[in-house]
Amino acid sequence: MTKAKFIVIEGLEGAGKSTVISAISNFLSAKNIKCKVTREPGGTPMAEAIRKCVKEDWEEDVTQQTELLLMYAARSQLVSNVIVPALAKGIWVIGDRHDLSTVAYQGGGREISQNKLKILKELTLGEFEPDFTLYLDIEPSIGLERARGRGQLDRIEQSGIAFFERAREMYLSNISKMQNARTVDASKSVEEVEANALAALQTWMSSI
Amino acid sequence: MTKAKFIVIEGLEGAGKSTVISAISNFLSAKNIKCKVTREPGGTPMAEAIRKCVKEDWEEDVTQQTELLLMYAARSQLVSNVIVPALAKGIWVIGDRHDLSTVAYQGGGREISQNKLKILKELTLGEFEPDFTLYLDIEPSIGLERARGRGQLDRIEQSGIAFFERAREMYLSNISKMQNARTVDASKSVEEVEANALAALQTWMSSI
Repeated sequence: MTKAKFIVIEGLEGAGKSTVISAISNFLSAKNIKCKVTREPGGTPMAEAIRKCVKEDWEEDVTQQTELLLMYAARSQLVSNVIVPALAKGIWVIGDRHDLSTVAYQGGGREISQNKLKILKELTLGEFEPDFTLYLDIEPSIGLERARGRGQLDRIEQSGIAFFERAREMYLSNISKMQNARTVDASKSVEEVEANALAALQTWMSSI
Repeated sequence: MTKAKFIVIEGLEGAGKSTVISAISNFLSAKNIKCKVTREPGGTPMAEAIRKCVKEDWEEDVTQQTELLLMYAARSQLVSNVIVPALAKGIWVIGDRHDLSTVAYQGGGREISQNKLKILKELTLGEFEPDFTLYLDIEPSIGLERARGRGQLDRIEQSGIAFFERAREMYLSNISKMQNARTVDASKSVEEVEANALAALQTWMSSI
C-alpha cells in the first residue's frame, strides 16, 4: 500500500476550498482510502482556542509577530497531535490550509520577511512538508465577494484588498517553484473547479 | 528627569514576587515616580487570552513549541501595546516576569535549546531588554509548597520538582552573567525579602 499522504488545499477566502475538500474526501473514500480533514489554524481543542485568539476582532492592535507566532503555535499542535499520528496510522490527511497560508498571508499580506518565516518554520516543523498542494486561484475581489455572502468577515479577512493582492502574488510565486503543487482556476463554476481539482489530484496520485 | 525604566521581578512559584512588586510600586509612588505593573504571560486582553491557552490543563499534549510560541506571542503584544508606550510616556514599568522566565522555564525546565530561544527572542523583541532584573531565589520545594497553599497549580506549575530544579539552575546561571540584575534570597521572612529587594533596587537606582 502507498504510504498515507498529506494533501493541502490552499487559496484565498471564497476560493472554494471547502467544496474541493469535500470532493477529495469523497473521492478518496470511494477508493477505500481512509482520510481525515484538518483545518488551520485549528484542528485540536487547543489549536481551536488559538484560532479564536488570532481571528477575534480585538480592540487592541494585534502585532504582526503575535499573529505569526500564534499561527505557528496552532500549527505545531496540529502537526504533532493530529497530522503526524494520522499519517503514521495510514490515514491520509486533507488540510484546509497549512504553512503556505502563512507564507501568503503573513509573508505576502503583512510583508513579514521570508527569512523570518523560514526560520520560524524550521524551528516549529523541522522538515515536515505536505506531499501535495492544490492551490485554488481566485482574484481577491471575487473571492471576498463570495466570502461576504457567507457572513461577517473575521479580523484577518477584513484586511483590505491590497493585503489579499499581495497574498495572492505570494501564493502564485511560491506555487510556481514547488514540485508537488498544482493551481486550479477557481473563478470557474463549482463543477469545473471540482472536476479540475480531482483531475489534478488523480494525475499526481498516478505518478506516486 | 531620569528616563522611565523597565524593572522585572523574576523567580519560581512561591518566591514572593507579588509582595515585592507591591513594595516596589509603593516605594516608587512615594518618590512621585509614576509606575505600572504588568504580568507575563498576559497584561493585555489578547495576551490574557493567550495566557489562558497556555496555562489551561488541556487533555491533549501541549508541544514544547506551542508553549514557547504562545509565550512569545503574548510577550510581543505586551511589549508593543503596553510596556513600550508606558516607558515612552515616562511611566516606569514593573514586570511580574519577562523574557528570563522563558529562558528558565522553557529553556531550563523544558530543555529547549538556548539557541532556539535566542532566535525567537530576536525575531520577537529585537534589542528590547529590561533595565533592571531582581531575581527572588527560592528552593523549588519551598516555593511550590507556598504556591500550593494559594490553591490549585496550573498546567506548568504541575511540571514536577526536577523541572523547577532545572529552571532555578537556569535562572542562577543567567543572573550571574547579567550586569543589571541582583539576586535576593527569598527563603527569608517576607519582611527581610522586601527590605533586601528594596535595598537592591535603591542601590541600582542611585547608580543610574
